[in-house]
Amino acid sequence: MMIGPVANCGKKPNARLDVAVVGATGIVGQQFIVALRNHPWFRIACLAASEKSAGKTYEDALRDPSTRALRWFCSEASPDSVLGMTVQDASTLSVSEVDIVFTALESDHAKKLEPAYAKLKPVISTASAFRYDSDVPILVPGVNFDHAKLIHTQRKNRRWNGFVTPIPNCTTTGLVVSLKPIQDDFGIETVTMTSMQASSGAGRSPGVLALDVTDNIIPFIPGEEEKVQTETLKILGSELGGHVRPAEFRVSCTCTRVDVLEGHTEAVFVSTHKPCDPSTATDSMKRFGENSRLDLPSAPEQLLVVNEDPFRPQPRLDRDAHGGMAVTVGRIRLDPARERGVKYLLVSHNTKLGAARGAVLVAEYLVKSGYVSQQPNP
Amino acid sequence: MMIGPVANCGKKPNARLDVAVVGATGIVGQQFIVALRNHPWFRIACLAASEKSAGKTYEDALRDPSTRALRWFCSEASPDSVLGMTVQDASTLSVSEVDIVFTALESDHAKKLEPAYAKLKPVISTASAFRYDSDVPILVPGVNFDHAKLIHTQRKNRRWNGFVTPIPNCTTTGLVVSLKPIQDDFGIETVTMTSMQASSGAGRSPGVLALDVTDNIIPFIPGEEEKVQTETLKILGSELGGHVRPAEFRVSCTCTRVDVLEGHTEAVFVSTHKPCDPSTATDSMKRFGENSRLDLPSAPEQLLVVNEDPFRPQPRLDRDAHGGMAVTVGRIRLDPARERGVKYLLVSHNTKLGAARGAVLVAEYLVKSGYVSQQPNP
Amino acid sequence: MMIGPVANCGKKPNARLDVAVVGATGIVGQQFIVALRNHPWFRIACLAASEKSAGKTYEDALRDPSTRALRWFCSEASPDSVLGMTVQDASTLSVSEVDIVFTALESDHAKKLEPAYAKLKPVISTASAFRYDSDVPILVPGVNFDHAKLIHTQRKNRRWNGFVTPIPNCTTTGLVVSLKPIQDDFGIETVTMTSMQASSGAGRSPGVLALDVTDNIIPFIPGEEEKVQTETLKILGSELGGHVRPAEFRVSCTCTRVDVLEGHTEAVFVSTHKPCDPSTATDSMKRFGENSRLDLPSAPEQLLVVNEDPFRPQPRLDRDAHGGMAVTVGRIRLDPARERGVKYLLVSHNTKLGAARGAVLVAEYLVKSGYVSQQPNP
Amino acid sequence: MMIGPVANCGKKPNARLDVAVVGATGIVGQQFIVALRNHPWFRIACLAASEKSAGKTYEDALRDPSTRALRWFCSEASPDSVLGMTVQDASTLSVSEVDIVFTALESDHAKKLEPAYAKLKPVISTASAFRYDSDVPILVPGVNFDHAKLIHTQRKNRRWNGFVTPIPNCTTTGLVVSLKPIQDDFGIETVTMTSMQASSGAGRSPGVLALDVTDNIIPFIPGEEEKVQTETLKILGSELGGHVRPAEFRVSCTCTRVDVLEGHTEAVFVSTHKPCDPSTATDSMKRFGENSRLDLPSAPEQLLVVNEDPFRPQPRLDRDAHGGMAVTVGRIRLDPARERGVKYLLVSHNTKLGAARGAVLVAEYLVKSGYVSQQPNP
Repeated sequence: MMIGPVANCGKKPNARLDVAVVGATGIVGQQFIVALRNHPWFRIACLAASEKSAGKTYEDALRDPSTRALRWFCSEASPDSVLGMTVQDASTLSVSEVDIVFTALESDHAKKLEPAYAKLKPVISTASAFRYDSDVPILVPGVNFDHAKLIHTQRKNRRWNGFVTPIPNCTTTGLVVSLKPIQDDFGIETVTMTSMQASSGAGRSPGVLALDVTDNIIPFIPGEEEKVQTETLKILGSELGGHVRPAEFRVSCTCTRVDVLEGHTEAVFVSTHKPCDPSTATDSMKRFGENSRLDLPSAPEQLLVVNEDPFRPQPRLDRDAHGGMAVTVGRIRLDPARERGVKYLLVSHNTKLGAARGAVLVAEYLVKSGYVSQQPNP
Repeated sequence: MMIGPVANCGKKPNARLDVAVVGATGIVGQQFIVALRNHPWFRIACLAASEKSAGKTYEDALRDPSTRALRWFCSEASPDSVLGMTVQDASTLSVSEVDIVFTALESDHAKKLEPAYAKLKPVISTASAFRYDSDVPILVPGVNFDHAKLIHTQRKNRRWNGFVTPIPNCTTTGLVVSLKPIQDDFGIETVTMTSMQASSGAGRSPGVLALDVTDNIIPFIPGEEEKVQTETLKILGSELGGHVRPAEFRVSCTCTRVDVLEGHTEAVFVSTHKPCDPSTATDSMKRFGENSRLDLPSAPEQLLVVNEDPFRPQPRLDRDAHGGMAVTVGRIRLDPARERGVKYLLVSHNTKLGAARGAVLVAEYLVKSGYVSQQPNP
Repeated sequence: MMIGPVANCGKKPNARLDVAVVGATGIVGQQFIVALRNHPWFRIACLAASEKSAGKTYEDALRDPSTRALRWFCSEASPDSVLGMTVQDASTLSVSEVDIVFTALESDHAKKLEPAYAKLKPVISTASAFRYDSDVPILVPGVNFDHAKLIHTQRKNRRWNGFVTPIPNCTTTGLVVSLKPIQDDFGIETVTMTSMQASSGAGRSPGVLALDVTDNIIPFIPGEEEKVQTETLKILGSELGGHVRPAEFRVSCTCTRVDVLEGHTEAVFVSTHKPCDPSTATDSMKRFGENSRLDLPSAPEQLLVVNEDPFRPQPRLDRDAHGGMAVTVGRIRLDPARERGVKYLLVSHNTKLGAARGAVLVAEYLVKSGYVSQQPNP
Repeated sequence: MMIGPVANCGKKPNARLDVAVVGATGIVGQQFIVALRNHPWFRIACLAASEKSAGKTYEDALRDPSTRALRWFCSEASPDSVLGMTVQDASTLSVSEVDIVFTALESDHAKKLEPAYAKLKPVISTASAFRYDSDVPILVPGVNFDHAKLIHTQRKNRRWNGFVTPIPNCTTTGLVVSLKPIQDDFGIETVTMTSMQASSGAGRSPGVLALDVTDNIIPFIPGEEEKVQTETLKILGSELGGHVRPAEFRVSCTCTRVDVLEGHTEAVFVSTHKPCDPSTATDSMKRFGENSRLDLPSAPEQLLVVNEDPFRPQPRLDRDAHGGMAVTVGRIRLDPARERGVKYLLVSHNTKLGAARGAVLVAEYLVKSGYVSQQPNP
């Protein structure tokens, strides 16, 4: 096995790559399984989860012990081929037989297990455990794929054959996709953002109780604001010689939870270095959207959509734009509190673009760019 | 009858004042009726509404013609004494027999009818029709009662015996109450605010459909952002010689509607002239809260409450603080995008402090300060 | 033009039929437009609505006059071909150029306008205006298409060249589809049903306010229970010689509104003549489901689906089964209060199978069976 | 200490009784603390919970370890006097110093711990562990306080100085209160009921996720239907000579969960032995309501309220009737599927009358009737 931008660079793989899904029984793991259904490049070869699921078939691991109901939470059906697979124990899993490891672990488990996998293989993770390490890129499709070069630094530093590339917090994703054209065309001075986040962002263990969010707003999501602030600057930073220098503007967020199932809504106020008004900002975002087509299986036709209906974007109506893989922006207006800059709203799908499907898209890029290569046939 | 800061200044009225409620059949009118139940100073002497209700008893006017259900929308019971009153036609109403007119009219009706009433009597209004006229104060309890002096200018300009004092938009109210101590103690440079507003703010005709807001956010409330931006500066402006100079800082808002019944939540980011951090801002707000007790029947013990639980304020839990008449602030934090200043969240009750009960409190102030005086006994 | 079971009986039409959509600007009208997009047999040739929309393009008729937002309420995009059509005045519409008229009118308008259309052409209606006339069939796919024979009686009675066939109330549809196999296999003695209906069932004018249904249930939907009770007996009645004798069992309903967007849920308790237990009832329903495939363009693969997960059916998870055209049943259990019979729950999509798409499916049947024939080419 | 209908029968206690709350940190335990605030007869002398809370102050036990937020879930404030108490370990608790033990335990813990407490003291429980034992009464205020006589049988059977009296499942409570007058005046043949239950009924561990119930209905609550069916017959059974013979009618339920915070709604269809129509049933229920005043501190003015507005009862509007201690009934109608009988809807507050406050009311009855007596002063 070789890793590095070599043989298959710029090409799709010759044969399907074998992938492992770790944390497969949880909701993010299930979303990985859905994102990988009928994937043209990837084949689920291995499922892993906690010790208590290990040794069971995936179907048995999902069954509620008392009611026997299948605890499968995606609206898409669970693929039969996967239901019969035997779940392995994530803590003792050997990844030598797979080409890529997708992890959907809680951060504390990720901290322990991902390095063990990364010694051997590429790990694409939804966990925050390694996001803030200087040799770890947080990759966002269409925004900073050039940061993938940090992988070389990481492998050298850590003497790993594989590597870890986490995706950002789901709230960061929509923000950076919408800011990227503004940054490129106008330069950013400050970003002020208030999020109204969907309950699916909290998962199911314990998740958000109806008792807490019905007829209500929860004004605090522990750790979220710091994550968004730090990740935004890192992702929009510049790569040079295997290092990323964070962007130098300032970001301030207030993150709240509202009674919406899927789709994070963000009210953004951005001040810019160069003059920027609703018309030029709209042009900039539209142009970015039109040129954002990535030639990858999970990529949407457009990563960024500008909807000019004054009542949009709305999470229920816009979260599924382009299969949940596009960020929708609207209400781009003058901002009376900023000399240069605009305000707008965005909606992005937190459990599609912002989670498993986004991670699969990152993996596709890494394959196409030669960062992942395939097991030689034995 | 005399109007002006004369005889009963600083005192409660000798006898109960007779008041009219115009727009009495709508939801805001009903809230006025609730706010005036058992009022120690005021007695509902007259109800008025549109032509189609005129001549009916209030109870009949509220009955749905097909199901005969009583269309009374407040959780408090409808007072029997009021149900039997005959509704008058607002467009031909003579107000000469009452001391105060409370109006809950749509803005276009207010534009026509309020001047007719104000020729004779004090009009306290929830409509926006006259808010932006330079000789009309927008009074907020505890914040700018000194602006009441504009009433003299208004009466002189318009040759009215009465006057019009509108209350602000319900979203402005919470904002200015929370900003007042910051302005006084630190000076304000800019305010950036995102609101998550309750569906009750849209009333019932047509109101917010469940189809639009369940599992969703509506990112646009026509006219709302401009109202909040303009009113905030006017209310926090300074009165001098019968004129108000708007405050000179800049305000930018994004106003959204969420699936919450009552209570507007606002995420506020404020930059200040003097250094201001979470600790000094908290002290400032607490001190303001403790000193904000108004000696008036509808006044809460505190107008501003700082809740230090990191998960507060929440609209369902905090909207009814002090009878729905207090603004609750929480999560006062450093703002990494501002050199001096803080960010915080607030909740205020849009249909109590922000509407009828707030208007009644303003009326109480005007009575106590002598702007309203009583009909001589005939 | 000829109407009657003649030439094209049992065949699909030779060319696309021209259809009119009356009431096109309302939400049900919009759903008709979606149900007719890319239809292999039907082509929208005419849109009609109230006088105030007449003469405008459909797009203009949908634009909100103040915000210019397009008031299009379906999640599917509005077809460009339709947006440019000129809306006609329903009250003066000539239907002589079309082959079928779909009406989405309020009942009082339907009462006046549908006979005018039916004099000339087949009218498929979502309104209740003619449902209870003895010569008018209420057709439900897979349940009582034999009742279409009433059309002959109707045309004779009324001397119409066309006819009216209303679809049932959206709450009746799911009930009769689920009861049909029970009736056929066991005979029905009584049906007791409690519905928990989606807010979309009330449309948008005025529709269900979030203020009324958030954190709440509305226990009364005027007229609904009587409709379901009467329609169920008529639809499950037997056709003989051009007449329908209502079924002779007894039905009792309680209809409520809950905070669900789409999909009516019904808790059904049925007592039967012959012994019936969960196992035989399940078999009966499954068999019916498997044999219910209609060879028509809008027909689902199965009209009735039995889901054996104990936590199903759920409206959000099951309303879109088979494109919203299947009824999903679950929790078929013994009923301790009935000697013979079962209890179960069902979910059916009130605005797809229960409205426009269901009406289009009825029209397809009527075409295929020769009740509708095509305009001769001019 | 003596237990039995002796000395203080029919009188209020001479001094406040000391009570323990077991399971004090959970939401039902918190509701007990609220129900006992400023209680004229009872004083919280002891709080107990699981081992991990034992030894901490109640306030510390409620603090979230990471955010330090107080996990207090009642809208009423947590009494300062209680926050400072030290929590004891429920599994080793000695109850000898208290007069009554209120338990809010999960059923499996109740099974083990309640007998240990009941050996010494009266135990009033919200758990189902002992509800179905033949010598254990399930007491419902105003309905079957005569069943308290089973306590003698129970104490004899089990050689306990104390006893266990569980309250029913919260869904049963509203049903039996509304059925009691029907049973007394008309005799009941069958009851068919569909419930739409509030999410608070599931507590918080794990509780109902917003992800599961927003825009949805959960059609299955494991064990609930059986509980309601069995408990209804036991509670409405007749006591004779220290034994209770269950009522002989038949009950069938479907229990669902809807997106309502508090207040269970039930659609009831009841067939009776004697003729019964909406008018006589309404009279019967009203008479029962008017005569249901219990002279006890937590008793509502009326246990049963008939609301004749056709759009009532609604859970949000009616759950708090008489402090959440009254059942509200409405829409009493003819039932076309039953020869004799009516259908109606009811709302009752599942966490007030149906839980802690209901249990405190039962305790008050047991004190007043002499089943509980007080510790002699040491």
